[in-house]
Amino acid sequence: MRIYDIIQKKRDGMELTKEEIDFFVEGYTKGEIPDYQISALLMAIYFSKMNERETFDLTMAMANSGDLLDLSKINGIKADKHSTGGVGDKTSLVLGPMVAALGVPVAKMSGRGLGHTGGTIDKLESIPGFNTVLPTDKFIDNVNDIKIALVGQTANLAPADKKLYALRDVTATVDNMSLIASSIMSKKLASGADAIILDVKTGSGAFMKTENDSLELARAMVNIGESAGKQTVALITNMDEPLGYAVGNALEVVEVIETLKGNGPKDLLELSVVLGAYMIIAAGKTDNIEEAIDLLYKTIEDGSAINKFREFIEAQGGDPKVIEDYTLFKQASIELEVCSNEELFVKSIHTSSIGKASLVLGGGRERKESIIDSSVGIILTKKVGDRVGINEVYAKIYANDENKVIQAKEIIESAFEFSKTPVNPQQLIKWIVSKNGTIKY
Amino acid sequence: MRIYDIIQKKRDGMELTKEEIDFFVEGYTKGEIPDYQISALLMAIYFSKMNERETFDLTMAMANSGDLLDLSKINGIKADKHSTGGVGDKTSLVLGPMVAALGVPVAKMSGRGLGHTGGTIDKLESIPGFNTVLPTDKFIDNVNDIKIALVGQTANLAPADKKLYALRDVTATVDNMSLIASSIMSKKLASGADAIILDVKTGSGAFMKTENDSLELARAMVNIGESAGKQTVALITNMDEPLGYAVGNALEVVEVIETLKGNGPKDLLELSVVLGAYMIIAAGKTDNIEEAIDLLYKTIEDGSAINKFREFIEAQGGDPKVIEDYTLFKQASIELEVCSNEELFVKSIHTSSIGKASLVLGGGRERKESIIDSSVGIILTKKVGDRVGINEVYAKIYANDENKVIQAKEIIESAFEFSKTPVNPQQLIKWIVSKNGTIKY
Repeated sequence: MRIYDIIQKKRDGMELTKEEIDFFVEGYTKGEIPDYQISALLMAIYFSKMNERETFDLTMAMANSGDLLDLSKINGIKADKHSTGGVGDKTSLVLGPMVAALGVPVAKMSGRGLGHTGGTIDKLESIPGFNTVLPTDKFIDNVNDIKIALVGQTANLAPADKKLYALRDVTATVDNMSLIASSIMSKKLASGADAIILDVKTGSGAFMKTENDSLELARAMVNIGESAGKQTVALITNMDEPLGYAVGNALEVVEVIETLKGNGPKDLLELSVVLGAYMIIAAGKTDNIEEAIDLLYKTIEDGSAINKFREFIEAQGGDPKVIEDYTLFKQASIELEVCSNEELFVKSIHTSSIGKASLVLGGGRERKESIIDSSVGIILTKKVGDRVGINEVYAKIYANDENKVIQAKEIIESAFEFSKTPVNPQQLIKWIVSKNGTIKY
Repeated sequence: MRIYDIIQKKRDGMELTKEEIDFFVEGYTKGEIPDYQISALLMAIYFSKMNERETFDLTMAMANSGDLLDLSKINGIKADKHSTGGVGDKTSLVLGPMVAALGVPVAKMSGRGLGHTGGTIDKLESIPGFNTVLPTDKFIDNVNDIKIALVGQTANLAPADKKLYALRDVTATVDNMSLIASSIMSKKLASGADAIILDVKTGSGAFMKTENDSLELARAMVNIGESAGKQTVALITNMDEPLGYAVGNALEVVEVIETLKGNGPKDLLELSVVLGAYMIIAAGKTDNIEEAIDLLYKTIEDGSAINKFREFIEAQGGDPKVIEDYTLFKQASIELEVCSNEELFVKSIHTSSIGKASLVLGGGRERKESIIDSSVGIILTKKVGDRVGINEVYAKIYANDENKVIQAKEIIESAFEFSKTPVNPQQLIKWIVSKNGTIKY
């Protein structure tokens, strides 16, 4: 088998066999096939596309290219939730304790954030003492003991995907459904969950800007998951404004705590509950979505969710007193309010710009090796549909640098679009995609 | 300017500016842009294509990437002839002395052969003592003195093309008209001729297998040449059988000598005369094609062409006695005849297989560093349309290795296709493409 023939075959619009896909994935991972041939192949895939079978074979080849996590020592059905990346998305931290409080195991390995979207691990590390690196045994024991553990990815999961993604990133070959879907799903399949719940973001703050693209990606991923024998459900959710009000690591954890206490933003709570509901359904807790949602809301009402969060912080070495005393988080030295000078309605918020503002303040990573400032960020006080009065604040900036705060303010001001007439807020959850098809939520 | 944006732009079907094309050609030639980005760009060009303006700008960028030959010290208009590569194509050696005999300068730098097509320089080196490496001054002096010099390429002409071609060759991005046309024309433009006569081969022995593809390539090259201010004419000629009867270095030179003496194969003489006619027209000798053809045929009749060939051999250190005594060429030790065992007509000759047979015998280069055996090759004694009697010879093999001769015989046998009924020979010159359009010959 020769890589040249594989490139030519895909260039000519033909279907690659499983053997050909295994050949190039393995050869590239081992360094036997050079970058320049794989980048030509990726561009040929971009134009000629891959069908469902090829996409599945590519996913499996990448999933099997490194370590495969064995979660079999964890009791019960392990459902994993994955988001395609949003701004202010702290749902994992809200639904984790809720789901665990119902006795369903939450065993999650997360990546760190890069660019304008934050990472769950970065958020957790804003809690003083919190340890995101656990040996596998301890990770499994924690899940069996308290039903929840959340750690950074240490295993060598899907190295083929890592290498291919890095190449796609510099050769304009990221934007292909098969390549995007297989990249996400290869990591999920390597990380050993029994069921996968996907949150596919759509809109200005998402990788997929249109609902159609998001639906196509969701269907591709559900196909892959189900073909691999994993129950897979995808929600298409709005990312045309940040989720909740807080963007920035410590600020988001405070919002998580408030939500678990019953005082959180409606959109954040709703999305966390619905994603959690599909997780507990996958785990066999119930087969009725309304019942699942009710069960999850009750964990807030009866305090079991916030108690689980406390247990979880303690189990990973964090200081649980943060739950009562937010001043234990690192505090920003500068606070700046962004105000309106006339009476208006918020029409839209360019979400990735809000992420960019947080990045500029030091709350995210420009490069892999960047160090994060957990105290900085933005609290939006108004969201789409809200009325803003004269001189009323619509965002607060938390910063530690005079120059950066000015930069962030300019970005935020241009991210908000206003209307003189009332605006209807957007629907948060748009579609549910499963093996049974696509239904409007 | 970023290479990523250029890849993305071409991927999205947009036209690249001259500045963008200069940027990637220069960056790649200097090693500042890595192979893997250029191979992705080449595949994007393969799919999205380039328009005439982009193709011209790419050609000029590659032509200007290295040395530019200055032939201004040569008196008269220098017309260069270039063939896209054929089997048994020795037209340069036939038309060179004919054109020079008419006082029109022939200053040619040729590449060496690779694969199944032979190189003019390799053929000349079968003449004992012949020197294909001349200092530039001596090269120019020879052309001014005797109107002809033929040397191997020593200057660093169009290094960008060399590097890009090597990359295309391993990434399945050779087959694109803009890339093929710009590759050929960049070298021609760098080598300083005032006019360019192109012989675009079509058929089983050619790079372009169909007449339509050959016409498209010819038009692209004529456009480039004329845009660069060089008078450019392309002939589309048949390569569905070898040109003449001889394939192999010394065998071909003997055929050249016979042709210049007036005993050559009709097809070889006809093509040489017509290509030569366009050269002397470009040089201003006449503006009438019939008159040009007559002038060239007269150089055979009056002996001036063979005398010019003798002068040319002497001027480059070769032994001119080869013209009278063919035993002065290196002789093959084995001769094997290929016969038919029934009465048939030659229907077709798979031309690249004949080239392959010569390669197997040692008459061509498998790799750049291969050493050529000038004595081996094939003499076809029958061509398309010819009748072959029972036990009549249709090809003779000249070899120096018992095993190779058997291999070559098998290749030749399967290259010939026969018919029980008479077959019409194919037309040699099919189309003439110039700035005035395409006309049937």
